[in-house]
Amino acid sequence: MQYFFKPRGIAVIGASPGKGKGGNLIVSNLKEGYTGKIYPVNPRYEAIEGLACYPSILEVPDPVDLAIVFVTAKMVPHVIADCGRRGIPGAMIQSAGFSEIGALGQSLQDKALSVAQENRIRLWGPNCMGLVDAKNRYVFSTVTPTLWETGLPAGDVSLIVQSGMLTGAFLIDLMSHGVTGISKVCSIGNKMDVNENDLLSFLVEDPDTTVIGLYLESFADPRRFMELARSSKKPIVILSGGKTAKGAAAALSHTASLSASGAVVRGAMVQAGVHQANDFYQLTDYCRTLAMFPSRSGKKGNRVAVLTYTGAAGIVSVDLMDAHRLIPATLSAETLNALQSVFPEWMPPANPVDMWPGIIINGSKAAYRKAMEAVCADPDVDAVLAHCFVGGFDLDPDLPQMTGIAQRAGKPLFCWISGEREGVYDFQASAQKINVPAFREITRAIECMDLVLNRSPVEETGSLSLTAAPETSDLQRFTDLSKMDNGPVDEFTAKQILSEFGIPVVEEAIAGSKSEAPEIADRFGFPLVAKGLLPGIAHKTESNLVQLNITSKAQVERAYTELDAAMHGSGRILLQKQIPGKIELVTGFIRDANFGPCVMLGLGGIFTEALGDTIFGMAPVSQKEALAMIGRLQCQELLNGFRGSEPVDRESVAQILVSLGELGCRHSGIQEIDINPLIIRKGFPIAVDGLIILA
Amino acid sequence: MQYFFKPRGIAVIGASPGKGKGGNLIVSNLKEGYTGKIYPVNPRYEAIEGLACYPSILEVPDPVDLAIVFVTAKMVPHVIADCGRRGIPGAMIQSAGFSEIGALGQSLQDKALSVAQENRIRLWGPNCMGLVDAKNRYVFSTVTPTLWETGLPAGDVSLIVQSGMLTGAFLIDLMSHGVTGISKVCSIGNKMDVNENDLLSFLVEDPDTTVIGLYLESFADPRRFMELARSSKKPIVILSGGKTAKGAAAALSHTASLSASGAVVRGAMVQAGVHQANDFYQLTDYCRTLAMFPSRSGKKGNRVAVLTYTGAAGIVSVDLMDAHRLIPATLSAETLNALQSVFPEWMPPANPVDMWPGIIINGSKAAYRKAMEAVCADPDVDAVLAHCFVGGFDLDPDLPQMTGIAQRAGKPLFCWISGEREGVYDFQASAQKINVPAFREITRAIECMDLVLNRSPVEETGSLSLTAAPETSDLQRFTDLSKMDNGPVDEFTAKQILSEFGIPVVEEAIAGSKSEAPEIADRFGFPLVAKGLLPGIAHKTESNLVQLNITSKAQVERAYTELDAAMHGSGRILLQKQIPGKIELVTGFIRDANFGPCVMLGLGGIFTEALGDTIFGMAPVSQKEALAMIGRLQCQELLNGFRGSEPVDRESVAQILVSLGELGCRHSGIQEIDINPLIIRKGFPIAVDGLIILA
Repeated sequence: MQYFFKPRGIAVIGASPGKGKGGNLIVSNLKEGYTGKIYPVNPRYEAIEGLACYPSILEVPDPVDLAIVFVTAKMVPHVIADCGRRGIPGAMIQSAGFSEIGALGQSLQDKALSVAQENRIRLWGPNCMGLVDAKNRYVFSTVTPTLWETGLPAGDVSLIVQSGMLTGAFLIDLMSHGVTGISKVCSIGNKMDVNENDLLSFLVEDPDTTVIGLYLESFADPRRFMELARSSKKPIVILSGGKTAKGAAAALSHTASLSASGAVVRGAMVQAGVHQANDFYQLTDYCRTLAMFPSRSGKKGNRVAVLTYTGAAGIVSVDLMDAHRLIPATLSAETLNALQSVFPEWMPPANPVDMWPGIIINGSKAAYRKAMEAVCADPDVDAVLAHCFVGGFDLDPDLPQMTGIAQRAGKPLFCWISGEREGVYDFQASAQKINVPAFREITRAIECMDLVLNRSPVEETGSLSLTAAPETSDLQRFTDLSKMDNGPVDEFTAKQILSEFGIPVVEEAIAGSKSEAPEIADRFGFPLVAKGLLPGIAHKTESNLVQLNITSKAQVERAYTELDAAMHGSGRILLQKQIPGKIELVTGFIRDANFGPCVMLGLGGIFTEALGDTIFGMAPVSQKEALAMIGRLQCQELLNGFRGSEPVDRESVAQILVSLGELGCRHSGIQEIDINPLIIRKGFPIAVDGLIILA
Repeated sequence: MQYFFKPRGIAVIGASPGKGKGGNLIVSNLKEGYTGKIYPVNPRYEAIEGLACYPSILEVPDPVDLAIVFVTAKMVPHVIADCGRRGIPGAMIQSAGFSEIGALGQSLQDKALSVAQENRIRLWGPNCMGLVDAKNRYVFSTVTPTLWETGLPAGDVSLIVQSGMLTGAFLIDLMSHGVTGISKVCSIGNKMDVNENDLLSFLVEDPDTTVIGLYLESFADPRRFMELARSSKKPIVILSGGKTAKGAAAALSHTASLSASGAVVRGAMVQAGVHQANDFYQLTDYCRTLAMFPSRSGKKGNRVAVLTYTGAAGIVSVDLMDAHRLIPATLSAETLNALQSVFPEWMPPANPVDMWPGIIINGSKAAYRKAMEAVCADPDVDAVLAHCFVGGFDLDPDLPQMTGIAQRAGKPLFCWISGEREGVYDFQASAQKINVPAFREITRAIECMDLVLNRSPVEETGSLSLTAAPETSDLQRFTDLSKMDNGPVDEFTAKQILSEFGIPVVEEAIAGSKSEAPEIADRFGFPLVAKGLLPGIAHKTESNLVQLNITSKAQVERAYTELDAAMHGSGRILLQKQIPGKIELVTGFIRDANFGPCVMLGLGGIFTEALGDTIFGMAPVSQKEALAMIGRLQCQELLNGFRGSEPVDRESVAQILVSLGELGCRHSGIQEIDINPLIIRKGFPIAVDGLIILA
């Protein structure tokens, strides 16, 4: 990727002398900061922007590593072929008019790609705004000169953005608002060849990048993405568009992206240790915060001291912390003693520390300094949230001094800043330079503290590559199943398969005849459940093929007769022990069109749909990952035991997820597995129903 | 309250010539805008700020309606007595040093209040920043002159703020950021006399106020507040501090406020039609938005057309709408046809409308105008969210023109604005002037759209005043109960009381002897539950006094023997029918220390604590209010029936809430009622356990 990021020479194919036009902006932007050779290419001109202009890429002299292409779409395949003949390794297609405009554009795009592959050229784009590198002052883009007016504040955040306009808009906004320091912004557009994974693998090694933020509407190869993310020591934050059904429909019409379901994406990102944002400035705020505190390791803690100039904001901060896994630190007697020297006698200090009376006595700078020293010395304080005000009331703190105290103590300092507009801007910009994230809204400050203070190591796991779990024919039953049509396997067979893969299933047997039914009842004891298994019928309850609460031999015989009649003698009758249990879970396996094999766990029974409390993970999952999935259930507290009942054995539930993942990964014929309910009996899970769908 | 808001003359007691001091700032601020008489009072000076200074309030000539008091706390009672002798109706105490500093200050505050009451003076404060009226340019406050530098942008939002510093900080921030037009800001401090209800009742009638926003840490009289809010035609938004347990602890140390539990406050506010914010700028963003769309009535709808310059933001908007009861409008064939004229042939328009290809052809102003005309003409579009960018790419829309189109069509227009910093500021400020709310974050725009588009009328109800349900002795049983000690009533008695108040309870009877037990079993049928009722024991399960699943006469006799032995013969034994039911609710009554009688409803059984899905309402509740409470349960979909089972009869559940409220309101001896579980049997609720605690 070096020829994209550090080219020794750049040809601009489609360069133009027309001010404000894309073909001119690219050349002008290069001239402002790029120090290598620049070769405008256009047969109609001798010179552009004072640079010699070449009639064709074939005539451009060495060195030239990169071609930026800005010609009409239909000329692009031809231009790429020429680049190939000239031996250029990379081309960045900034023209539009490809797959995003429908069938005609798609065929042009396909052609361009095949030409590129024949000529061993990597293509970036099309329909993109290229690359901006603020540290090197490289602008390989049609972005307007506003960038140069407001300056390019260099920093450590690199962005990968699957949207042309957004890239440009984002950049100008971020730069002129001055709170996010940018390293590289990569606009990947239709990503016909170079995709987010190529760029991610470059950026995780890039010494100029500390944090990577992405806006994506689709994943070119989700498993590769996850492996890159998992192995990255740098924090990664993603805003994925199209997480809801309606959003996905909108994404389809935008970049023809096939979105995975939001729950699958969410689960996979957590698994890969990728942080998730829901809105654009939330994304950049997360990125700039993590750029200041990039390490996942080291001492962690979520106990926060709040210094505020108004008790009201202290209270609201504590209220907001409650929803974000942060707790107000309980200050030690020593700390309170040290704080008391800042405050009038009548005021016993507490956390949140209402600075106002101390500010009246000491002045704001001394009061904040003394309070910072006191709370930072407290071993029970992990981080500080300071509320600051500029533009009146003599409240201004000495931020560099406070920062020094915090940094020497190794405790992250976050600020909420309000006040007079220009002062607020200056405060945010200066705070940014000394690695203090300062926010306009308390909520955002708290969200970002949560991100930093509650960041945990990614769960260990095996490889996500499906080749690690090669398809096998270890299960004789699949040989038999292969004779079957696609569709649902009958419940009894499904549970035998589950059982062979180590999943505990309910005691059950097929009653081959009416007389066998009471014999089975003798074996299992009452109450019993009887089910009619009919080929191709997945939903037995809706088909009246389930009878519950059978408590006598007479009843079991009657059930047999009724079910047999309902199936016109063409089905099998299954008898199983009826399992009582207060907690019902649901678990399963799906093969997502985009993310591939995934396992699922949720609250079962009647709550599955009403509460939507389901967690997905990309399969295969390790035991640790499975345990982490359980811990992410909204209702996971239910599993700890309640009113004297025994807790759920989480290891056993996790083992089922591991087995489901393995089963699904090893047998590509399995489209879906659904265990609903998975009843908890005396603390241990047992599959009471089981559905396997073949495809 | 006219003497506070429109005084004909103001005495400033504690006026001072010292620049920057509070006593000087008050006088200077008055001189800048207030047009009535100003009388500095201080025995040490002849003149202050060019105004004659009086040695005592007693010497101040007419007219004088208001005294602003800024003397040390211990002088305040004396000064108030003088104000009384001078016949001044109102005093605003801006000094600090009262209840907020502990016992000494509290006694001063009590003394000041009793002096005021003797002298019939209303007191505002103390420990407050007084009043700012931007429309009249009145600043009755020590707020710094920064206000005058940035101007006082007048508007329709009035604020009531229970925090001194916050008021000042808020004002300067809001004014210099220029997006919220302010009418009056009232800083109420310790509210020893004038409280939020006095101000609210003034502001709901104030012609200069369209929306009222409050920051409160405590409610002086919650029922009065709710009645005022309910009868207000103006929107009211509240940020209440101390909603969480830890936040409440912080509030206690801040203003010595006793906070009601967050769930109680939330429920009461919904009941009163008050909108709730969680953070400060969310509060003001809600207020400024509602100031533009204050009406609760009129055509409503939640179908939104999104016009965007970048498909990515369109997708993210649709994703975010999903969580906020908003749906992307399905555009009619006519609308799509009209839009097509804006776009190139290859682009079939859809909602969200990606404007970029249309902007290239038409220029941004014409493209936005034509698109606005098309979507506003569509009867299936209720509102428009336009994404705008300023500062590059020639994307600037003609906002006044777009606004005209939206306003003529009667469809609210909201904007998301990004781009170059100064341009963004100008855009927001100009949008504000023409009644278009423009936000920096899509999330906030969506939250505010939700507020406006999904605002519904407040549920009808009877009076919340407890005098409307006078305490009665209609229930003979209470005469008997009054002989009892405080504490839990036994379950059997509790259920008889519930039953007399119309609440369906399980079939049950006391077995007076071992031989009676099987007779009762004959009457009810199996399975049965046996419970041991011991005076003062509320939690029978934990005390091993409950036996479930009794299915034979032998078992019921054994249960009798065991329970009787466990209670050493000193309790009663209750037998009840065991009720199967998949859905368990919990309902009850509590007497909140601050909000008084409240009813509660939630998901029951093991889910109560794990999910925290409980809704509170202030009692008495009407049938309609009770139905609305049910509808606010997170799990309310569960009640619609699932997998063929019958739906829950919501009217019956609501009736139980109405009855619980009535029972609790009419009998002040009842501290708490707890029905857990309330089982749903064949669609109808039935109380299976019942606890009444007397106090």
